[in-house]
Amino acid sequence: MELARHVTIVAMSLVVVGSVAYDGVETPHGKVDRMLGGAATYIALAASYFAPVKVVAVVGDDFEREDYDLLAGRGIDLEGLERVPGKTFYWAGKYSDDMNDRITLQTDLNVFADFAPKLPPSYRSAPYLLLGNIQPALQRGVREQMNGLRLAGGDTMNYWIRDFREELIDTLRGWDFLLVNDSEARMLSGEQNLRRAAARILQMGPHTLVVKRGEYGALLFSNSAYFHAPGYLLETVFDPTGAGDCFAGGFIGYLAEQGVKQSDSGVSINQWRRAAIYGSVMGSFCCEKFGVDRFRTLTRDEIEERYREFRAFTDF
Amino acid sequence: MELARHVTIVAMSLVVVGSVAYDGVETPHGKVDRMLGGAATYIALAASYFAPVKVVAVVGDDFEREDYDLLAGRGIDLEGLERVPGKTFYWAGKYSDDMNDRITLQTDLNVFADFAPKLPPSYRSAPYLLLGNIQPALQRGVREQMNGLRLAGGDTMNYWIRDFREELIDTLRGWDFLLVNDSEARMLSGEQNLRRAAARILQMGPHTLVVKRGEYGALLFSNSAYFHAPGYLLETVFDPTGAGDCFAGGFIGYLAEQGVKQSDSGVSINQWRRAAIYGSVMGSFCCEKFGVDRFRTLTRDEIEERYREFRAFTDF
Repeated sequence: MELARHVTIVAMSLVVVGSVAYDGVETPHGKVDRMLGGAATYIALAASYFAPVKVVAVVGDDFEREDYDLLAGRGIDLEGLERVPGKTFYWAGKYSDDMNDRITLQTDLNVFADFAPKLPPSYRSAPYLLLGNIQPALQRGVREQMNGLRLAGGDTMNYWIRDFREELIDTLRGWDFLLVNDSEARMLSGEQNLRRAAARILQMGPHTLVVKRGEYGALLFSNSAYFHAPGYLLETVFDPTGAGDCFAGGFIGYLAEQGVKQSDSGVSINQWRRAAIYGSVMGSFCCEKFGVDRFRTLTRDEIEERYREFRAFTDF
Repeated sequence: MELARHVTIVAMSLVVVGSVAYDGVETPHGKVDRMLGGAATYIALAASYFAPVKVVAVVGDDFEREDYDLLAGRGIDLEGLERVPGKTFYWAGKYSDDMNDRITLQTDLNVFADFAPKLPPSYRSAPYLLLGNIQPALQRGVREQMNGLRLAGGDTMNYWIRDFREELIDTLRGWDFLLVNDSEARMLSGEQNLRRAAARILQMGPHTLVVKRGEYGALLFSNSAYFHAPGYLLETVFDPTGAGDCFAGGFIGYLAEQGVKQSDSGVSINQWRRAAIYGSVMGSFCCEKFGVDRFRTLTRDEIEERYREFRAFTDF
């Protein structure tokens, strides 16, 4: 009985693993030398509108109180945010005029170089897990420490696909869904055509594949069908940093809120489709201000209003 | 009474003006040295599934009987297909491996260099007009010869936007809709952001703007709203030549079939949204075989089936 009650309490919570960083970003709209960033930060903030979030990440002793407070203020559990001597991961980049390309100016891994995710015991029975883009073996290690998962999935990148292929493929076997962008999907599958690329990836383990296409939205694939989630047409894109991670946060957050479980798999299930729309919605808000600034004021009502806009501009 | 009856007979017909050409095309799937092509050809073929089409174009004395027969076999009125001494417009190009880029290898305007559209009297009372990409002053001349138009619109390109800007802007004033791709929309408006670009273009005359985005589908804008028509995910793209023109043909063809008139303007009217979906459907079929080959066997039933697929992969 005690256990059952405990399970009920954490039933909808979501563990997010990944980087918490400081970013320096320059876009045509301005420049910020150092602001809160990192995949886990964006995923957690976006997901926090839908479900209780528990973060696993590492920061240095330069991590600011106000950044901690922003996350905690969104109800995010930071027991798993390890603080170690040294500097927080730092990344700096500059976007092209149309913001479709960016160059990396600086990457200082700092304390993130030795990141070994440590799951607090209170995290292990959470039913949802989103593994941000880190070394595949570390992702697998986290997955294996969880008990009672309803859904697990994550992100990866070209570096792991190219140089850690076997490790990654081992890791993917334990995932319900994989989130990648289109070039990563092509690289992982060896297929240029997205539909065929998706078919191959779906043989690697995940029953659902999300292919993020930046401003063009995302495609959701399962074995029997696919779904097209459009991008939102913003009048001004201030800073696209983190938009893909906010997509992931909205996506898994909504699935957690809805209590979707592994056996509810497949694009034929409406919750998966709606999760992709909420992903697009959260990605669009992310671009409206620099860094995480939009999440300082964003409300669930605004999210629902934009979701209705998605309905309006896709209905025919 | 005699006039009224005549008007009824042509009520849904559509005049298409533009190039009829021979194309040499190389894609990763193969190479064809010389096959039927040209904007008016693709527009007319795609539209012919929805409405009676009347073509205005010019060909040389090398134009083949079998190509004439293909168009006539689709019920396309070729009274306005002028045949003059000389050679038919010839274009040759080669696509990149992912088929998102192409280079032009050869452009021989031939008889198309002196194209001066001549409207047979029987065409003038047609209610629908689609002006393919030719010199804006020629487009305007055709528009002015029509009486009783319910809808008129057309296409243009970077060359006219840059070097014939005033002439083009003069011409656009008389159009209900404009079809361009995203870079043309940016060039014409001077705005990078598509939403703001659309708002500017809608002040130039057309009440509806279609922004074609290749494999990503198209956006439909009117003053009050926009609509997102996705692209179709083909398993194999054999040859993208003509896909944008087939979009235009499906779009105007459906509007003509439905009898949409100028006062039914606006994205809030479902027929405009569905026209954009039929445009995407026709563009997708076009890519399935080389050149116009798909239209040798395509049926309206196949079109309707794919339209239902669009519903299935966008519904949430």
